This record gives sequence, C-alpha cells and structure tokens, in this order.
Amino acid sequence: MSAETAARPVFFISDRTGITSETLGHSLLTQFKGVEFAQQSLPFINSIDKARQAVQVIDRAAESSGKIPLVFSTLVDDTFRDIIAEADAHIIDFFDTFIQPLEQELGVQSSHAAGLSHGISDAARYMSRIEAVNFVMHSDDGATHRNYGNADIILVGASRSGKTPTCLYLGLQYGLHAANYPLTLHDVENGRLPHVLKPFHDKLFGLTIKPEHLSNIREQRRQGSVYASLDQCRREVRSIEDVLKQQRIPFVDTSDISIEEIAASIMLQRKLKRRYV
Amino acid sequence: MSAETAARPVFFISDRTGITSETLGHSLLTQFKGVEFAQQSLPFINSIDKARQAVQVIDRAAESSGKIPLVFSTLVDDTFRDIIAEADAHIIDFFDTFIQPLEQELGVQSSHAAGLSHGISDAARYMSRIEAVNFVMHSDDGATHRNYGNADIILVGASRSGKTPTCLYLGLQYGLHAANYPLTLHDVENGRLPHVLKPFHDKLFGLTIKPEHLSNIREQRRQGSVYASLDQCRREVRSIEDVLKQQRIPFVDTSDISIEEIAASIMLQRKLKRRYV
Repeated sequence: MSAETAARPVFFISDRTGITSETLGHSLLTQFKGVEFAQQSLPFINSIDKARQAVQVIDRAAESSGKIPLVFSTLVDDTFRDIIAEADAHIIDFFDTFIQPLEQELGVQSSHAAGLSHGISDAARYMSRIEAVNFVMHSDDGATHRNYGNADIILVGASRSGKTPTCLYLGLQYGLHAANYPLTLHDVENGRLPHVLKPFHDKLFGLTIKPEHLSNIREQRRQGSVYASLDQCRREVRSIEDVLKQQRIPFVDTSDISIEEIAASIMLQRKLKRRYV
Repeated sequence: MSAETAARPVFFISDRTGITSETLGHSLLTQFKGVEFAQQSLPFINSIDKARQAVQVIDRAAESSGKIPLVFSTLVDDTFRDIIAEADAHIIDFFDTFIQPLEQELGVQSSHAAGLSHGISDAARYMSRIEAVNFVMHSDDGATHRNYGNADIILVGASRSGKTPTCLYLGLQYGLHAANYPLTLHDVENGRLPHVLKPFHDKLFGLTIKPEHLSNIREQRRQGSVYASLDQCRREVRSIEDVLKQQRIPFVDTSDISIEEIAASIMLQRKLKRRYV
C-alpha cells in the first residue's frame, strides 16, 4: 500500500483490558468521518518489556503507513508511560491530561496505581454481576414468572424487539435483575395485559419497533413465514403499542438506537440505580 | 450533613447514554482512594432545556455539599457545552480537551455532531450483536454441540467458573460467537477431553478458579452440598487444570479478575478480532 492511500494507524494502549481506552478513542474518532483508520488494541501493557514491544509495533506501523500513528493511552504507571512516549506517534494520554488538574482540585495525590478501575478482587461486585446474569438467563422469554417479584425491571414487547440483549446488558453493565415477557397478538387482543403481569405494573417497560424493521429481523430467522410478514408485524406492533399507551407503561422504539441507549433510556425513565458502582 | 463531612458531588454528563463519560470518570476517580464521592449520571442532555436543568442540579449539589462538584462531560454540541460551562463546578471536558489537537494532527475538521459514537442506525452492527447474543444463549452450558463448528471460541471449565457471563460479554462487547462446555470430573478423569470437543481443539479456552473461591460461589447456590464442598472443588479444579495443561489449551484463572479482563485476556491469547468496530 502506498503512503498516500494507507489508513492512519491507531492504537489503544492500556495496562489492563483496553476497554476504557477503546471507548474513549472510538468516541473521538467517530467525529472524523472521512478519515480511514487502521485500529489495533494493545491491552495488558504491564511490564517494561511489553511497553518496549508496543513501541516497536507502533514505530513499524508509522514506517509502513508513512503516517504518524494516533495512540490513545490509559496507562497509569509512569515508567510504562515514559517508554510509550518515545514512540513515533501522536499520543493522547487520558491519565496524564486529567489526573493533575484533579489532584489540584481535590487537594490530594492520586495513587498512580494501575488496574484499579475494574475493581479486581472485588468479590461482591463480581458475584452481583454473575447473579444478575443468572437471573436474566433464568427469566428469559417468559420462561418463568416466579422471578417477577424479585425483578428490578420486566421488559415487554413483541418477539425480536430486542428484549433479551437489553436484559443481558442491564445485568452485565448495571447488575440489574431484568426479566422479560414476549407479548403475542393473543395476549393483547382484548386491549389488556396478561394477568401474570398485572401485579408488577410499576416494573414494566415496553420495547417497540418499526414493523419494517421487525419484519427484516424475523425474516432472518424464519424466511417467508407469516411470523415474519410485514402484515403480521404491523398488527402486532400496533396492538402492543395501543395497550402500552392505554396502561400508561413507558416504552421506547428500539429501531434506530443501540442496546446501550435502550438500556440507558430504561434506567432513566424507570429511575433505576445500578446495583454496584 | 455539614460541609466538612459531605461527599464531593460528581456528575457524568453526556448527550447520549453516559457510559463513556462514566467510564472515563470512574477510571480517574479510583485513583483517589481516600476521597468520598457522591456520583450521579445525567444522560441524554440533548436540548437547551435539559442542559439548563443539569446546571441547576449541579449548582444545588454545590450549595448543599459546600464543595465544588466535579463534572465529567462528553458533550459534543457546542451550545450545550457552553451552558454546562456556566455551572459552579470543576469541569473535565473530554471532547474539548482532545478534539482540537486531533483536528490539527489529522488536518480535517471534526463533525461536532453528537451521538455518533454508538453507531445509531447501524443495522449491521446491531444485528451482529443480537446474533452473537442468540448464539450464546443457544449454546450455553453445553446445551447443544451442533453450534461448535460456527463458534469463534469455546470456553471449558468447571461449573460456576465464569463461563456464561464471559460468553455473554464476548457476544455483547465484541460480537463474538462464544459457546461453552461445562467440564465434570467424569469428563476429565481419564486425563482426556470429551470426544465432542476434540475436533475443535484450536477454539478451546479454559477457565480455572481457586477451589476456595469456587466453593464459596457454589455454596450460594446449593448450601452444604457435596457439589459445593471444598474437597469436591479441589478435585475438579486439579483434574481440569491437569487436562488443560496436558492438551496445551490456554487458560486463565478467573478468581481475582473481572469479566472484562477475562474476556480481554481470551481475545489476546486466542488472537480473536471483534466482529464489528
């Protein structure tokens, strides 16, 4: 590849998983639509050797692309950061940029200790996430209603409206106990909710979706079926939305937003708090 | 509460989910161990009204705590950022800090458009995540072996060693098709792997765990059972680790690390790439 057409090399460097570095980097890079990036994560840079190897990888990318690589770093350890600083790159150093002003504002020194941010050895946090995930797995797709009493939230909506991934995300990200109930045309045809949901009105949250979108998703599962037909999807979505409005259950249209956004929207509207920080 | 003992108010502000802002803020705050923080997210600040309300919330917190609030902001829109800047707070503005140096380095203007970072309307990304989650749900706990051919990775380990949450995280975060197989003492007692796993040797990855830790986790599920006894856990863990070593299957001890770290470690060791960016 010639230097003119090569993508700009981008590296996400971290002493642990690299997730924070990736998340922050992506949110900045998406602001530059026309630019092509060749992205690579370099996680677990937690020794002098690994830091030196990372510098070699970055320098090789600079040479072969003919472009200055961008390096997004959340490294905390000064020794490793000093090594990375020698790379032939434009370094965006999150820690260095923000930690000093924070030390000044708070009037205390920071610990400069790596790997604190994911709560290692925090058994309580780990257990609460595992428990939340188990809760979701055992309560999926209306599998059992016995858990509804212990649920933080119960998602209702048509089959394939995004209930399961949203429940799992709520469990993994926020430690919430999220159940779901798939509404069928039969469930809502009299304009009411299924009996089993009635005692839990304040925990209900609806997911709705554009019929065209729902039909596309269902086609991938059962091509050419009545279940996937636009007509069927239209009838289901209309009936479900009618019931949700009538019963004053908050809902969100999942057609054009990500799972993260569906989850955050539910948290906000139902005033839910994460189970761990 | 008197001003001396009040926690320092902290706000995470975003025009969308607030996850990036929370992640950034948490990773910085964990560096200040002795300081007590009262944290609150203010997501979906996407109108002038909401921005003004946020300023009121921040200013009230400043007044009642007697401390200058910290505000972590990933707001992109200049209008909303200007409003937030009027709050009586120490503002850590992620976008403002990094976007201008990046514009200079890349030689292009950024779009300054909010809400790009989670790939709204990116149907392909959404579908690939949903598909990955479905794959995990249908392949959980050795439910079926038919999917192993299509799996990106197959986690093996004792019951309760963290396989299911890790698979789900790999699906949601990286779009990977992650299956798992729960190894029993019976499976590994002859020092071999179950037949069904043999064709997939290069996709296998082991999760191991300290017997004491495993016993604690199992006790929460079946108190006083043989299944949860330290003796049983010791025997399982030892036999499984022996087989993993013998068969040269990479593995990680999940006892003291987070789900994020387990997942990142698997990605690195098995050289897996995320299915979407």
